Amino acid sequence: MKKNITNIVEKLASHESYKDLYHEHRYGVPLPSNEVLLQIIDLLRGIVFPGYYGTSSINTDTLEYHIGVDIEQLQSLLVTQIEAGLSFYNFEDENVVFAAYNQSTVSNEIRHMAEDRAEKFIQTLPRLRRILATDVIAAFNGDPAAKNYGEIISCYPIIKELTIYRMAHELWNLEVPLIPRMLTEIAHSETGIDIHPGATIGEYFTIDHGTGVVIGETSVIGKNVKLYQGVTLGAKSFSLDNDGNPIKGIPRHPILKDNVIVYSNASILGRITIGEGAVVGGNIWVTHDVPAGATITQKTLLDGHK
Amino acid sequence: MKKNITNIVEKLASHESYKDLYHEHRYGVPLPSNEVLLQIIDLLRGIVFPGYYGTSSINTDTLEYHIGVDIEQLQSLLVTQIEAGLSFYNFEDENVVFAAYNQSTVSNEIRHMAEDRAEKFIQTLPRLRRILATDVIAAFNGDPAAKNYGEIISCYPIIKELTIYRMAHELWNLEVPLIPRMLTEIAHSETGIDIHPGATIGEYFTIDHGTGVVIGETSVIGKNVKLYQGVTLGAKSFSLDNDGNPIKGIPRHPILKDNVIVYSNASILGRITIGEGAVVGGNIWVTHDVPAGATITQKTLLDGHK
Amino acid sequence: MKKNITNIVEKLASHESYKDLYHEHRYGVPLPSNEVLLQIIDLLRGIVFPGYYGTSSINTDTLEYHIGVDIEQLQSLLVTQIEAGLSFYNFEDENVVFAAYNQSTVSNEIRHMAEDRAEKFIQTLPRLRRILATDVIAAFNGDPAAKNYGEIISCYPIIKELTIYRMAHELWNLEVPLIPRMLTEIAHSETGIDIHPGATIGEYFTIDHGTGVVIGETSVIGKNVKLYQGVTLGAKSFSLDNDGNPIKGIPRHPILKDNVIVYSNASILGRITIGEGAVVGGNIWVTHDVPAGATITQKTLLDGHK
Amino acid sequence: MKKNITNIVEKLASHESYKDLYHEHRYGVPLPSNEVLLQIIDLLRGIVFPGYYGTSSINTDTLEYHIGVDIEQLQSLLVTQIEAGLSFYNFEDENVVFAAYNQSTVSNEIRHMAEDRAEKFIQTLPRLRRILATDVIAAFNGDPAAKNYGEIISCYPIIKELTIYRMAHELWNLEVPLIPRMLTEIAHSETGIDIHPGATIGEYFTIDHGTGVVIGETSVIGKNVKLYQGVTLGAKSFSLDNDGNPIKGIPRHPILKDNVIVYSNASILGRITIGEGAVVGGNIWVTHDVPAGATITQKTLLDGHK
Amino acid sequence: MKKNITNIVEKLASHESYKDLYHEHRYGVPLPSNEVLLQIIDLLRGIVFPGYYGTSSINTDTLEYHIGVDIEQLQSLLVTQIEAGLSFYNFEDENVVFAAYNQSTVSNEIRHMAEDRAEKFIQTLPRLRRILATDVIAAFNGDPAAKNYGEIISCYPIIKELTIYRMAHELWNLEVPLIPRMLTEIAHSETGIDIHPGATIGEYFTIDHGTGVVIGETSVIGKNVKLYQGVTLGAKSFSLDNDGNPIKGIPRHPILKDNVIVYSNASILGRITIGEGAVVGGNIWVTHDVPAGATITQKTLLDGHK
Amino acid sequence: MKKNITNIVEKLASHESYKDLYHEHRYGVPLPSNEVLLQIIDLLRGIVFPGYYGTSSINTDTLEYHIGVDIEQLQSLLVTQIEAGLSFYNFEDENVVFAAYNQSTVSNEIRHMAEDRAEKFIQTLPRLRRILATDVIAAFNGDPAAKNYGEIISCYPIIKELTIYRMAHELWNLEVPLIPRMLTEIAHSETGIDIHPGATIGEYFTIDHGTGVVIGETSVIGKNVKLYQGVTLGAKSFSLDNDGNPIKGIPRHPILKDNVIVYSNASILGRITIGEGAVVGGNIWVTHDVPAGATITQKTLLDGHK
Repeated sequence: MKKNITNIVEKLASHESYKDLYHEHRYGVPLPSNEVLLQIIDLLRGIVFPGYYGTSSINTDTLEYHIGVDIEQLQSLLVTQIEAGLSFYNFEDENVVFAAYNQSTVSNEIRHMAEDRAEKFIQTLPRLRRILATDVIAAFNGDPAAKNYGEIISCYPIIKELTIYRMAHELWNLEVPLIPRMLTEIAHSETGIDIHPGATIGEYFTIDHGTGVVIGETSVIGKNVKLYQGVTLGAKSFSLDNDGNPIKGIPRHPILKDNVIVYSNASILGRITIGEGAVVGGNIWVTHDVPAGATITQKTLLDGHK
Repeated sequence: MKKNITNIVEKLASHESYKDLYHEHRYGVPLPSNEVLLQIIDLLRGIVFPGYYGTSSINTDTLEYHIGVDIEQLQSLLVTQIEAGLSFYNFEDENVVFAAYNQSTVSNEIRHMAEDRAEKFIQTLPRLRRILATDVIAAFNGDPAAKNYGEIISCYPIIKELTIYRMAHELWNLEVPLIPRMLTEIAHSETGIDIHPGATIGEYFTIDHGTGVVIGETSVIGKNVKLYQGVTLGAKSFSLDNDGNPIKGIPRHPILKDNVIVYSNASILGRITIGEGAVVGGNIWVTHDVPAGATITQKTLLDGHK
Repeated sequence: MKKNITNIVEKLASHESYKDLYHEHRYGVPLPSNEVLLQIIDLLRGIVFPGYYGTSSINTDTLEYHIGVDIEQLQSLLVTQIEAGLSFYNFEDENVVFAAYNQSTVSNEIRHMAEDRAEKFIQTLPRLRRILATDVIAAFNGDPAAKNYGEIISCYPIIKELTIYRMAHELWNLEVPLIPRMLTEIAHSETGIDIHPGATIGEYFTIDHGTGVVIGETSVIGKNVKLYQGVTLGAKSFSLDNDGNPIKGIPRHPILKDNVIVYSNASILGRITIGEGAVVGGNIWVTHDVPAGATITQKTLLDGHK
Repeated sequence: MKKNITNIVEKLASHESYKDLYHEHRYGVPLPSNEVLLQIIDLLRGIVFPGYYGTSSINTDTLEYHIGVDIEQLQSLLVTQIEAGLSFYNFEDENVVFAAYNQSTVSNEIRHMAEDRAEKFIQTLPRLRRILATDVIAAFNGDPAAKNYGEIISCYPIIKELTIYRMAHELWNLEVPLIPRMLTEIAHSETGIDIHPGATIGEYFTIDHGTGVVIGETSVIGKNVKLYQGVTLGAKSFSLDNDGNPIKGIPRHPILKDNVIVYSNASILGRITIGEGAVVGGNIWVTHDVPAGATITQKTLLDGHK
Repeated sequence: MKKNITNIVEKLASHESYKDLYHEHRYGVPLPSNEVLLQIIDLLRGIVFPGYYGTSSINTDTLEYHIGVDIEQLQSLLVTQIEAGLSFYNFEDENVVFAAYNQSTVSNEIRHMAEDRAEKFIQTLPRLRRILATDVIAAFNGDPAAKNYGEIISCYPIIKELTIYRMAHELWNLEVPLIPRMLTEIAHSETGIDIHPGATIGEYFTIDHGTGVVIGETSVIGKNVKLYQGVTLGAKSFSLDNDGNPIKGIPRHPILKDNVIVYSNASILGRITIGEGAVVGGNIWVTHDVPAGATITQKTLLDGHK
Repeated sequence: MKKNITNIVEKLASHESYKDLYHEHRYGVPLPSNEVLLQIIDLLRGIVFPGYYGTSSINTDTLEYHIGVDIEQLQSLLVTQIEAGLSFYNFEDENVVFAAYNQSTVSNEIRHMAEDRAEKFIQTLPRLRRILATDVIAAFNGDPAAKNYGEIISCYPIIKELTIYRMAHELWNLEVPLIPRMLTEIAHSETGIDIHPGATIGEYFTIDHGTGVVIGETSVIGKNVKLYQGVTLGAKSFSLDNDGNPIKGIPRHPILKDNVIVYSNASILGRITIGEGAVVGGNIWVTHDVPAGATITQKTLLDGHK
C-alpha cells in the first residue's frame, strides 16, 4: 500500500498534473471564501430586514446598537474579501499597472483599494434597503397566495435572491472582481434563479417561483417588471474574435422596458427590446423586438386523441 | 471613519428607513426559525423512515425508545414554532378577536392553541407514514433506474419533497400560519420543486427528477398521478378587487384526476380539469379541460436544415 | 398527555406500520452517510483544484504533504462508505451468492471488496483531474462573461456538478452500490443539474447555467458537447415486464455525438442519435435521430396583438 | 440482548430507583444551564475588559454599539437563568408563600422577580468594573514577574476568578438561588480557587497562583488583602441541631482586616479575626485571633540527616 | 523556506526520532478517545441524575424512552472504547496469549471481550446509582452551606468526581485497560481531585472543596468517610525489583475504616490503618496506624511577634 | 427600560470608566487568542507524539505527510500569534525604539520578527521531542501504578504540563512576549500545576499527581528531579524599589540540583540551593540551603487522644 500511495501522491503533486488547476496566493492573501460571503449575506439581511433576520429579539430601544455592530462587522469582512478578490485578479492582463511598485507596496495599495470600495458599498445601504422595500411590495402584489409582507420577507425565494443580487450588483459597479459572481452563484444554488451581477434591474421587480430563471450579464430591466419560473433572458449567439474565442463584454442580452410581464419558460434571446407594458406568454422563444403594450403568445397546436 | 459609520448607522436606524421591513416580536415570542424547522424535518424523517434517517444504528429492540424520544422532541419543538407562527400572525386583520383579553392572557391563549395543534399534528403521524409509503412505491415503479426502495428513500428528491410537503399540508389544514410556507420553501430550495402547502395531493404520487415543478395553492391532485421535471400547475390569471389588488383564496389552479401523467415542462393553467387517466405531453401549454383517458401532445413543427 | 404519547409511539413502533420504510443494518454497518460523502467531495475538490478548494494557504513547497494527507483521508473515508454501500445492497437478489460464508466471514469479504474498490478509485485520480481540466476549458470558452479559469473553478455550477458526477461515474463503473446515486443527488440539489451516474460523458463537456438539466442513466455523450439550462436527455417510454414492472437497464436515453450543441429547455427523448456537430434549438421536443451537422429549431408560430 | 436492555431500562426508570436524584421542572422552566452561564461570563468579561475579551477588534468609535448589544444580551440571558434558579428553588420550604396563586400566576410572578433582579444586577456593572480595576492593580503590584496590566487581565487566574466571584456575590446579595454557586464552581474548576459566593471581599484583593485556596461562605475580608496558593479560610467545626443536622447560615469563617497577608498553605479556621496588617506564615494552622500588625509563623523543627 | 521545512519534517519523521513516542494502531483500531469518553460521562450523568443532566425537559411520562436511548448509546460507545483499550494493551506482556489466533481472529476475539465487558458494566448501573445517592446525602449533611440535594447534584465537584470515579472503578474491576485511568484524569482536571480508579471506596463518601486531594491505587476506604481539600492518601515509598524498577501492584496506600474524618492538607502515607471513627487533623503527616476513635492533631508551635 | 439601558451603556462606554481595562489593537493586529493557542498545543502534541495525539489513524507510510502538514500549520499559526504578542507589547517602555519608522513600516518590521522567531522555534522541535521522551521515562519509572509509556503519554497530567511548559520556555528564550505566560496558564488550568515559563528545568523531570505545584520564574532545576503534589518553589520575599514597587527580574527562587526529590506540600523558598541527590520531606517549609545527599524532614509532633 505504501508504494501505491506514494506513487499516486507524486503524480498528483507534479507540476505537469496540477498546473492549470492550481492557485497560489498572491501577496499572501487567500482567495475569497464562500463561508465568509455567507456571513456577509447574513449580516446584510439582518441590517436590511431587522427582526426578520439577524438577532431576532431586536427592539426599537436597541436597534441602533445592533445596526452599529453589524455595520462594523460587515465592513470589516468586506474589506478582507475585496482584498482577496483584488489580489486574485490578474491586474497585468487588465492594464492595471503596478509597474512602479514592489510587492509590499502593492499589498498596501490593494488594501487601500479594498478599504475604499468597502466604505463606498456601506454608503449604498440606505438606498439598497429602499429598493428592496419596493421588491417586497411587488412580490406581495403579484401573489394572491401571500398573506402579508412578513411572509414575503421570511420565505419568498425572490427576496433572498434580490438581496444578494442587488448587493452583488453594487460591488460589480465598484469593479470588485470575482466576489459578485460568487455571491450570485450562492443565490443561484439556493433559489434556482441565476441572475448575472452585471445585469441592470429596476425597482419593484419580482419573479414568481423562480426556479430555472436565467438573466444574462448585459440584460437591462426597467421598473415594475414581473417574470415567472423558467424564463431566460439570454444571448442568441456570441461573436468570436479572430482566434475563435468569444468576445467579452458586448451587449447581447434583451432590454425589458417598464411594466413588462413574461410568463413561465419563455426564452427572450439577443439584444432585442420588449416594449413598455408588453406581455410575453409562456413556453415561447422570442428573438425579435416586441412593441410596447403588445401581448405575444404561442399559437397553440395540440394533437389530442383518446 | 467614525463620523461615516455613525452617520450611516443613524440613517439605517431611523424609523423612516426601516418601517416596512422591520418586525418586532409580539408577546415576547421570536419568529419561527429556519434552524428549528430543519431540526423538525430531521426528526420527522427519522420517525417515518427509521434506520434511513435519524439514529442510524437503530434496531427492533430499541426502536420504541427512539421513537418515544423523537416524538417528544418533535412535539416540543413544534409547540414553540406554532406559538411563534401564531404570535407573528396579525389576528386583528383576520377577525380573530382577542378584545376581551389583556396581553398576558393572549400569550397564554396562544400557547394553548399551539399545544393543541402540535398535539393534533402528532396524531396524524401514523397516517402520514402510511401515505408516504405509497409515494415510495410510486417512485420505485416509475423509475427503471431505481434498484430498490432503500435507494428511493435514501436519495430521491421527490421523497424529500413529499415528506416536507405532506407535513406542511397537515399544518396548513390545522390553520398554522407562516410555518407551512417556510417548510415548503425549504423543500423548494433543496429539490427545485415548489409545491404550495395548500395544494391537495392524493396517495401514490410521484415526480421524476423534479427541478422546476410548480404546484399552486388551490391545485387538487388525485391518486397515482405522475409528473416530470418542469411541469407547472399554475393560475392563468387572477382576479383583482376594486382596489386593484389580487383577491386571495379563489380556486385558480388545475384539478388532476386519478392516474394522470404529465410530461416534462408542460404548463397546465387555470381551474381546469385533467380527466382520469389522461396523458399530457411535454413542453405544452394547456388552458382547457382534457377529457378522461385522452392523450394530448404538441404538434411537432420543426425546421431542420444542414 | 402521557397516554396520548404512549399510544402514538406504540403505533409507530409496530412492525405493521414501519415495515417497508425501515432499514436495519446488515453486518453491523450503518448506511452510507451524506455528511461523510460531503467530506469526500470536499477532499476531492481540494486534491483536484489545490489552492481553490481545501487548505487555501497551500504552496508548492508543501503541496505534496497536503495531497498525501488528503489522499489518505479520502481513501479511508471511501472504504467506510463503500463498505456501507455494499452491506446495504441486497446481494441475494442480485445473484451475488455468499452461501458458503457465515456472517463474520461475509463482513470480512465485504471489507476487502471495499478496500479494493477504494484503492482502484484512488488510482483514477490523475486521469479524473486531467478530464476536469478539459471541462474547465470548455466552460471558459463557452461563456463570454467568464474572466479567467479561476472564476470558472471557484464558482461555476457545472464544475461543481462535473467534479461530483465524474467521481460518481468512476464508482458506478467499479460497481459500488447506492453511493454514486447519493453523490449525484447532492450535486443535483446544489446545482439543479440532474446527471445520472450511469451516463457516459466525454471530455470538454459543459452546461451553461444548468438549472433543470436532466441526463438519464443510459445517455452517451461525446466530446466537446455543450448544453444549456433546462435540457432533458430522457427516455420516451419504458418497457414493462410480464408483471407490469419497468424492465431495468435497457438503453433508453439518447446518444449525442461529438461537438453537439443543445439550446435551453429542449427535450431529446428515447434511444435516438444526435449526429456529430448537430445543433438542437431551444424549447423543442425531439424524438427522432438528427443527422450530423444539421440544425433543428422550432417553427415559430406566435400570436401577437396589442 | 433485547431482554437485558429492556430489563435494565425498567429498573432505572422505576420511581424507587430515581426518586432522590431526579428533577422535574417546575412551571415548565428548565434548570439553569452551565452553557448559558459560560456565555454570561464571556459577555461580562467583554463588557468589563473591552478589547481583552469579547470582540477583539473593538475601537473607541464603535465601543458604545458593542457594549449596548452585549448589555442587552447579558440582561436577556440573565433573566432566563434567574427565572430558572427561582423556579428550581423550593419556595414552600423557605416560607415564600405563593398560596394565593395558581400555577400560571406563579409563573408570571417568578418572571417578574427574574426581570427585576437582572435589571438590578445590570445597574451594578459600573461599580463592579471599578472594583475589578483595583484587583488588577493589586495583582500587578503583588507579582514581580508581571510585565503590565494587560498581562494580568489576559491570563492571571485571580482575575478570571474575581470577575466571576464578584458577579456571583452581587447575585447572592440579590437573593438569586443556585446560580451564584454554579458560577463560583465554574471558576473553581478553571482556577482551582474555591470562593463561596456568600463571602465578602474588599477591593484591591489578590491571590498569587491560587490553586487550592478555599474561602468559606461567611468569611469577611477587608481591603488590600493578599493570599497565596493553598490557603484555607475555613470553619473549625459546625453546630448541629437537635436532629444532628448542621445548622445553616451561622458565621463560622474568619475575618481578615485590611492589609493582611497569608502565605501558602496556611489554614485559618473558625470565626476568628486576623487584625489589620497582620502576616500569617505558610503551612500553619491558625485557630485563634491574631492581633493587628503581628507576624505569625511556624516554629521550624526539621530533622536533617545524610 | 522550502528547504528548512523539508529538513525539519525529515528529522521528525525519522524512526530514530519518534520511536518511543509513537503509537501505531493494533488491529486497525484507534486509541480510546477523550472526546468519546466525555460523551460517555455525559450519558452516565443523564442516566443517573435525570433532569439534572442530559435532556433537561425530561418528565415521568417519557423518562423510560430517554433512559432506553441513553443506555443504548452508552453501551455502543463503551464497546468501541473498551475495544480500543484492549487493542492498545500489550497482551503478550501480560500473559494473555493469543498465540493460536491469526490477526482477524484476534480482532473478533477482542470485539467479543469488549461487548461482554460493556454489557457487564451496564448491569451495574442500578447499583452505581444507589451508591451515588448515598454520596449525595453525605455531601449534603457535611456542608452547612448546602441548601438542598439539587444544589449538590448540580454543582458540587465531589459529585462530578465520584460519578466518574465510581464508573472508572467498575471498569477497573472488569479489567478494562487504560480507560479507567483516562476517566479519572478527566475528573482530576475538572475538580483537582485525583482518585486512582483502583482505589476502593465505600458508600456515603464525601470530600469538601477537594482541590489537591490524592487517593492512591491501593487505598481502601470504608463507609461514611469524609475528607477535606489537600488530603493525600499516598505511598510512603515503593519497593524496587532487582533491576531497580518499582514493583507494580503491591498494597502501599492506607486503609481508612468507617466514619473516619481527615482534615485539610493532612498526608497519610503507607499501608497503615486509620481506625473506625478516628479523626485526623489538618496539615499533618501520618505514617503510623491510628487507633479507632482517636483524634490526632499537630502540636501547634507558632512563633508570633509584632 | 430604554432609558435604563441607554444610561448604563453610556456609563460603561465613557473613557473614565474603561480607561485602564481597555485594549485597542496596535498596528491593526488583535491580541493573541486562547483558541488559537489551544490549536497550537494540539498541533504540537500531534507532532511530538504521533498516533497518541493528532490524526489517530497515522501510520509509518504517511507519517511524513502528516508531519509536513502539521508543521506548516503550526508555523503559520505561530507567526500570527507571535505578531500579536509583539504588537501588544509596549516597545517604547522597553527601549525597543521604532522612532525612525512610520506605522506601516513598524507593522512590516514586527511581521518579520514574528516570522523569524516562529522559524527558530520550529527548528527546536527535534530537541524538544527528545527531552519530552526523557520526561516520559521519568514519569514511568516514578509511578508503580503506570503500566506502560502509552498510558503516561495518553493521560498523565505531567506530560500535558511539560509539553506546554517546554514549548513556552523556548518561546520565552526567543523573547516572545505574553504568549509563554498564556500557554502556561492554559496548562495550569488543565493540570493545577503552575510552572512559570521563565523557569529552567532539566531533562528526566517529573511531578506525581501535581495539583498545587508552583515553580517560580527564576527557579533552576537540574536533571532527574522529582516533585510531588503541592510543592512550592517560591520567593521568600521580594525587593522593592524606591517607589515601593517590586523590582522585576531578580533571581529569587530556589536552585534544585540533579537527582533531588521533594515530597508533597513542601515549600522551598528564596534563592537557596538544594544539593545534588537531596531529599526534602513533605509538608515542610525550607528557607535555607540543603547540602547534597541530605534528607530533611519535619520533626513529627502529634497530639493524639481518644
